[in-house]
Amino acid sequence: MRRLRVALLGCGNVGGGLVRLLARSRARLAASHGVVFELGSVLVRDGERPRPGVDPARITTRVEDAISAADDVVVELLGGIEPALTLVRRALAHGLPAVTANKALLAAHGRELFAAAPATPLGFEASVCGGVPIVRALRGGLAGDRVLSLTGILNGTCNFVLTCMERDGVSFVAALAQAQAAGLAEADPSLDVGGWDAAQKLVVLAALAFGDWVPLADVSVRGIEDVTPEQLARARARGRVLRLVATAERRSKRLALAVAPRELPLDHPLAAVTMEENAVLVRGEDVGELLFRGRGAGARPTATAVLADLCEIAGAAATQGAHRAETHHLWHAESHAHTGR
Amino acid sequence: MRRLRVALLGCGNVGGGLVRLLARSRARLAASHGVVFELGSVLVRDGERPRPGVDPARITTRVEDAISAADDVVVELLGGIEPALTLVRRALAHGLPAVTANKALLAAHGRELFAAAPATPLGFEASVCGGVPIVRALRGGLAGDRVLSLTGILNGTCNFVLTCMERDGVSFVAALAQAQAAGLAEADPSLDVGGWDAAQKLVVLAALAFGDWVPLADVSVRGIEDVTPEQLARARARGRVLRLVATAERRSKRLALAVAPRELPLDHPLAAVTMEENAVLVRGEDVGELLFRGRGAGARPTATAVLADLCEIAGAAATQGAHRAETHHLWHAESHAHTGR
Repeated sequence: MRRLRVALLGCGNVGGGLVRLLARSRARLAASHGVVFELGSVLVRDGERPRPGVDPARITTRVEDAISAADDVVVELLGGIEPALTLVRRALAHGLPAVTANKALLAAHGRELFAAAPATPLGFEASVCGGVPIVRALRGGLAGDRVLSLTGILNGTCNFVLTCMERDGVSFVAALAQAQAAGLAEADPSLDVGGWDAAQKLVVLAALAFGDWVPLADVSVRGIEDVTPEQLARARARGRVLRLVATAERRSKRLALAVAPRELPLDHPLAAVTMEENAVLVRGEDVGELLFRGRGAGARPTATAVLADLCEIAGAAATQGAHRAETHHLWHAESHAHTGR
Repeated sequence: MRRLRVALLGCGNVGGGLVRLLARSRARLAASHGVVFELGSVLVRDGERPRPGVDPARITTRVEDAISAADDVVVELLGGIEPALTLVRRALAHGLPAVTANKALLAAHGRELFAAAPATPLGFEASVCGGVPIVRALRGGLAGDRVLSLTGILNGTCNFVLTCMERDGVSFVAALAQAQAAGLAEADPSLDVGGWDAAQKLVVLAALAFGDWVPLADVSVRGIEDVTPEQLARARARGRVLRLVATAERRSKRLALAVAPRELPLDHPLAAVTMEENAVLVRGEDVGELLFRGRGAGARPTATAVLADLCEIAGAAATQGAHRAETHHLWHAESHAHTGR
């Protein structure tokens, strides 16, 4: 049985879900993957808040104590750019595999992070579409094909709001309040309803599908704030529904990324995606159209995506023992140097 | 640039598609994966038939010449049990990674093949649902969750036949003739329409989802031969459609596998799957419902699945050079022993 120590950066909604999932999956993962994941330090912003299932001695609020030489993998669930960027950079620089659910970080610094340590695993299944394994599908399953275009419903909050407006004939503001009451929208929902969350995820998916990191500033973004119930009713009368659709496709050598409310015919595979569901439609040269659909957010689905990456890293670590031992040695050397200063 | 030599076993529909795809993808794979795949021997049944894109000097009809010590990976596209079983066994026993599209082989001997050489990669994305990366999703993406049930439309021929019967009100025999004319059914369609092809695929998916190889004889199988246009019309009148549905779920500790024609409400995610499309609906404890949908057959989609496995093996080979060198040594030693006999 191998033991992998996980430095957990962030223990909010998804982090708490991961702690519960790890506890619940312990016997299963020992049997299926021959691995036990143990928590190292758990970095949090608020050190006073209770964290069920976490040994209080593990909790730290000090960024510099978040990762130690005893860790085997880093899980970054802080969100936002800093200190996530510094910590993930630091992990990768020391050959320490990392897993992140942070689409904002990847959209802004993905190119740099993947280029800096190409041999060190950086898992990010959880960064896009929660539990839908679209990252794995694009990275592995579609490696044999050339992607022509990618179309998706990438933001569950917007889809929930549009579905409620359509179903109940209510205004954007009223539907957003419903989403907030259901725990599906942040107190400040502007990243979601403005289309920026979907745009960040689109940048990540497009990098996988087309091998190119498009700056977020180059994505054409329109949100759903101006959508009216009348507009939805008119679309419905024409046999169409409105969805916030993210698209990526090559146009005369340029990769064009856009997020905008779009009308879809009722028999379009994305038209059946309602409430907080996510879906991605990939068109490949040889494979044709592939649809991936499921829950795109929430602590439990997202935690399974983090754990899937942890399992893959555990598998890779099993076959790369020598390499890991070497990087640990480097880490120790540097830690000593640091202590000496 | 690494060069990997591929022993190709079988060069029919999918094999020919793979030869074309490899030629067409050469520059792309060199750039994306740093690898060039080269054909070793190409094993065929009929040595006289022209094989476009294949150097005639590579063609062999002799099973004993199919794999050589110079090969880095074996691709098995023969179908059926023998000589596929002997050749895949032989490859794995020598630590040679293999890729197979052979669901019949896996359904009958999967347990043995995976147990015999657990460290040697055996790719089988192409064995189920062609280009839909469901094997990867279950093996990797859902590793973090516990699968509760799996439901799928796994046979494109049956779905095409049922869709035609429903749409055109024609008999089973007439719709089957349409499928045959469209190149979607074998001259002997009994494996497809009898439900056995779907049952074989279900055994493979259930092994991935539940970690258990169920013998094909233990799958409850009913085909679509007795479905009548009247039955479809009655279902439609009740707002339902008929599909050949494969299901796997745990029932009081026993894993129950079944294939049968079933009525689905129109808003069921599998009801929208028409013509030769395939789809799999996976229900996970934490992730909820996930849908994977796309083309389940055809030379081009299936060849992309084979190539995806080849790319993964190429990636693993890059990090396991030492191990491969060692097994090659063993192979050579045995080849010499063989020559000496």
